[in-house]
Amino acid sequence: MADLEQNYTKEHFLYKFLNPSSICVFGANNEFLSTMGAMQLRNIIFGGFPRDKIYPIHPRLDEIQGLKAYKEVRDVPEIPDLAFIILPPHIVPKVMEECGEKGIKRLIITSGGFKEIGEDGISLSNQIDAIATKYNMRFIGPNCLGVYNGWFEGIMDNSKFNTMWIYETPERGNISIIAQSGTVASHLFWYCNKIGVKISKSFSIGNENNIDTVECLEFLANDPETDVIGIYIEEVKRGQKFINLAKIISRTKPIVAIYAGGSQAAFRSIKGHTGSIAGDDKIYKTVFKETGIISTSSIKEFLYYLRAFSYGIIPKGKRLAIITDSGGCGAMMAKVAEQLNLEVPEFSEELKAKLLPYLPSVANIDNPLDLTFQFNQYNLYIKIPKTLINSGEVDGIIIYAVFGFEEVLDVVKKSGGKSYDEFDISNDVMKNVYLKPIQKLVHKKAIPVFYIGPQGYDNPWIREFINDNIPIFDLWDFPVKCFSILADYALYRQKVNNQVKNEDILDA
Amino acid sequence: MADLEQNYTKEHFLYKFLNPSSICVFGANNEFLSTMGAMQLRNIIFGGFPRDKIYPIHPRLDEIQGLKAYKEVRDVPEIPDLAFIILPPHIVPKVMEECGEKGIKRLIITSGGFKEIGEDGISLSNQIDAIATKYNMRFIGPNCLGVYNGWFEGIMDNSKFNTMWIYETPERGNISIIAQSGTVASHLFWYCNKIGVKISKSFSIGNENNIDTVECLEFLANDPETDVIGIYIEEVKRGQKFINLAKIISRTKPIVAIYAGGSQAAFRSIKGHTGSIAGDDKIYKTVFKETGIISTSSIKEFLYYLRAFSYGIIPKGKRLAIITDSGGCGAMMAKVAEQLNLEVPEFSEELKAKLLPYLPSVANIDNPLDLTFQFNQYNLYIKIPKTLINSGEVDGIIIYAVFGFEEVLDVVKKSGGKSYDEFDISNDVMKNVYLKPIQKLVHKKAIPVFYIGPQGYDNPWIREFINDNIPIFDLWDFPVKCFSILADYALYRQKVNNQVKNEDILDA
Repeated sequence: MADLEQNYTKEHFLYKFLNPSSICVFGANNEFLSTMGAMQLRNIIFGGFPRDKIYPIHPRLDEIQGLKAYKEVRDVPEIPDLAFIILPPHIVPKVMEECGEKGIKRLIITSGGFKEIGEDGISLSNQIDAIATKYNMRFIGPNCLGVYNGWFEGIMDNSKFNTMWIYETPERGNISIIAQSGTVASHLFWYCNKIGVKISKSFSIGNENNIDTVECLEFLANDPETDVIGIYIEEVKRGQKFINLAKIISRTKPIVAIYAGGSQAAFRSIKGHTGSIAGDDKIYKTVFKETGIISTSSIKEFLYYLRAFSYGIIPKGKRLAIITDSGGCGAMMAKVAEQLNLEVPEFSEELKAKLLPYLPSVANIDNPLDLTFQFNQYNLYIKIPKTLINSGEVDGIIIYAVFGFEEVLDVVKKSGGKSYDEFDISNDVMKNVYLKPIQKLVHKKAIPVFYIGPQGYDNPWIREFINDNIPIFDLWDFPVKCFSILADYALYRQKVNNQVKNEDILDA
Repeated sequence: MADLEQNYTKEHFLYKFLNPSSICVFGANNEFLSTMGAMQLRNIIFGGFPRDKIYPIHPRLDEIQGLKAYKEVRDVPEIPDLAFIILPPHIVPKVMEECGEKGIKRLIITSGGFKEIGEDGISLSNQIDAIATKYNMRFIGPNCLGVYNGWFEGIMDNSKFNTMWIYETPERGNISIIAQSGTVASHLFWYCNKIGVKISKSFSIGNENNIDTVECLEFLANDPETDVIGIYIEEVKRGQKFINLAKIISRTKPIVAIYAGGSQAAFRSIKGHTGSIAGDDKIYKTVFKETGIISTSSIKEFLYYLRAFSYGIIPKGKRLAIITDSGGCGAMMAKVAEQLNLEVPEFSEELKAKLLPYLPSVANIDNPLDLTFQFNQYNLYIKIPKTLINSGEVDGIIIYAVFGFEEVLDVVKKSGGKSYDEFDISNDVMKNVYLKPIQKLVHKKAIPVFYIGPQGYDNPWIREFINDNIPIFDLWDFPVKCFSILADYALYRQKVNNQVKNEDILDA
C-alpha cells in the first residue's frame, strides 16, 4: 500500500501519457485509408487536443491534416510531453534516439514487428529497450494502439484524448480498461455506447516492453475518475506484484478480467500477437479467486459486468426478487438464478399482503411475480419495488416489462385509436415520475434494481435509462448473471474486510 | 412416421389456425391501452387480413376499429374459420357454446384465469374442455397469445397473421417457434429483427388444454416454410409422443429448446403461469440428448442458435479457422473453441504457402490468423476464405474485421481527408463484389463462414449481411458457440443417419 499512497494520480508518471500538454506524431499523413497513423492523428485532433500543440513530424510533407509538419523532431519549438510513433519497426530506434536527444520522456510506440514476429523482431525489441534506458524514457508498446482518456481537458467541453485507430468514442464514465489487445481497448467502443458502458481511460499496452499492466493498475488504483477496472490479459509479467496490487484494489474498485491464454490455439495466437507465453488456465483461475478478480471468457459478460459495477450499488446478499409481465421469462430467470446459487425466496405472508393492492386481480403473489398484461405502470415502477426494497426480504430486484410508451402510443395513433392525450407525456417526464424517485431509495438501501425492456437499446425510453445510469437490459440473460457477480463480489469484500479488521485487531 | 406422412401441411387441422379465411373476435374494443384485445385486433387488421372477413363481436359497440361489430356470433353472415376470444374467464364457456352452435371448429382462447390460478380455475378449465368435446372444436390456450404466421396470404404483399399483443413483426423466414410462453412467442420479435432471426410461424400455446406442443411439432414437421424449430418448454404433457416425433424431425429440421423447469423458484413461477408441474432438469437433459434437440437456458443463445441453423449450412466437422485483424479477439475465440471441444488446427505448410500472397507482411501465418491493420478487403472477403474453403483443412471459418466502409469514409470526409472517389462505392456494390461470390462456394462445400463487425447491427453494411442471410455477429462470443452447435448437430445427424441406414440393411 505504501507504494500506492505515494503515487497520487497527477504525480504518477502515467498521468502525462493520458494528459499531455503537447504531442509530436511520427508516421501520420493525409492517407486516411492506407495509413493507420493518419486516422490516429485525426482522432487526436478531433478529440479536442489544442491544435497548436500537435506537432506532426514528416520528412517530406509541410502540412498534415491542416497542421504544420516538421521535418525532424529537433525542429519542434518545445519539448513535447509525449511522442506518438507509428512507423515501420526498423525506423523506430532512430526516431527514439532523436526523441531522446530532444529530451522527450514519454513515448507511445504503436508500430508492430517486434518480438511478436519472432527472432527477427527480438533484437529490435531489445534495441528499443536499451534506447529507453539510455535516455531515461518510458514508453507504451510497441505493437499497441496507445491510450484513450475520456476526461481529457482539451479545447471542447467534451474533449477526449484518443490515440487509437477507432474513431468512435464512448461516453465519459468511471470504467477503465487495461488491455494487451487493441481490439479490447477500442473496438468495443461501439458496443459500449449501445449498452451504456461509460469509459474513463483505456490503455492498449501491446508488448509491455517498458510499461506493463501492473503500472497501469497502479495508476488506476488512485485515479478518482476510475471506479471499476477491466483487464484483458494474455500474460502477467510481474505475477507477485500483480497479485498484491489487485488484492488491495479490488477491496474498493472491482476488477473484471479476461484471461485469453490457457489453450493451445490461443497460445499460438498470443505468441504472434504480443510475443507473450501464456500460462495454465488453472493458475490464473486461482490468482483471480485469491485477488477477488471477477473473470470471464465472454466479451459481452466482460462489458456487462463492468457496467453492473459502474452503477456503484453493491448488494448486501443474494436474495433476488423477479417481477415480470410474463411467466415465461420469470421462470427462465428463476432457473438461471438458482444455477448461479442465488436465492429467489418466497415472499412472506406479510409482504404478500403489502403487495396485494398493487397487483392486478389475475396475478399470483409469489416470487417470481407475474403481473400479467394488466399491470399499472406506476405500481410497476414505484409501488412494487418500493415495497420490496423496504421489506428487507430481498437484496436485488429484476423488473421485466419496461416498454417505451412513446412507441406504443405512436402505434396506437397510427392505428386510428382514440386520442390518448392524458398519456401523451414525454419520456423525460416519465423518467422523473417513474424512475428517479426510486433511484434514491435504491442507492440508499444498496438494493440494485435491474430493468429489462424487449424493445432494445435503440428505443428512446430505454436510452433514458442508459443516459441516467439506470441498469437496463434488452433481454433477460445478463441481469441475473450481473446480479450474481455483484452478490459474489459483495461476499468477497465482506470476507476480506473482516480479515483486514481482524489483522488490525491483532496488530493493535 | 406414418402419422406424419398423412398430415400434409394443408390438411393438418392447425393449417387453418394459421391461415383462416375469416375470423370473429370476442373482447376487442377501441381501448388500445387498457384492453389487450384491442391491440390484438389491431394487429390482425394491420397484418393484412381481409377487413370484410374480420367480425368483431361486442354486446354494445356497433363499430370497432372501423369494422362493423356484431352483437352476437350468430349474427355473423358466415361460419368463421376461427374464433379469437379475449374475455374475462367466466364468460368464456358461454361464448364457446355460442361458437359451437354457430358451427365454428377452431378457437384461440387468450383469456387467463384457468388452471394456472389454482383451484378456482380448474373447474372452469374442465368446463371449456367439455364444451370443446361436445362441439368437436379444437382450441389453442387458454392463457396464451395465439399465433403468428409470417407467410399469411392477406391483402398486402407482405401480409402477416398476428393475434399476439406485440405489434412488432419479424421478417419472414424459415424459423418457427412453439412456446408455452407468450413472451418467448412474441416479445422477442424486436430482438429477432435486430439480429436477423426470421420467423415463419410462432405459437403461443398457453395451458395446452386442447392443442399441445406435440401437435404443433407435428404440423411444423411437414411445413415447407419451416426449416428450424425453437421450443420453449415448461412441461411436456405427452412425453413418449414428443420423444418419438422430435427424433424424426431433428434428423432434417434442427430443434432448439429451452426447458424452463427444474428449479424450485421456476416451479413456483410455472405453476402460476401455465399450471404445469415441471419435472427434473436431468430427465429433460436426457430427452434432449436422445432426440438430438439442442438445449440452452439462455434466451440469446436460443435465438442465435436458431439463426445459425436457419442459414441451412451444416458443417462436416469441427475444425475452425479464425481470421481477425487483431490477435486479442483471435486468442479469445481460440480459447472458447477449445473449451467447446472444437479444433483450431494449425495450417499445413502447403496451405500457409497458398495464403502468403494474400497477407500483409507483418501477419503471422497461423490459425488464428491475425491480418493486423494492413489487410486488403478483397483478400479478407474473397481470397483468404476461398483458399481456406478449398484447402480441405477446415470445416468452418470465422472472420473478424468487418467494417462498414461507408461509415469510415464518412468520417474521413468530415475530417477533411483527401477525396477517396475510388472507394466511394455503395454497400450494395460491395455486397456483390465481396460477399455474394463466396456464398456460392460456402453453400456448395457446406463450410459456414461467420463474420463479425464491431460497429453493431445498426450499421448499414452489417444490415446488408442480415438482409441477405449471411451470418454476421456484433462481437465474438456467439460465433464460436454457434459453430460448435452446428458441428455437434452435424455429428448427431451423421450418427443417426448411419443407424437408420444400418436398420434398413438389416430389414432388407
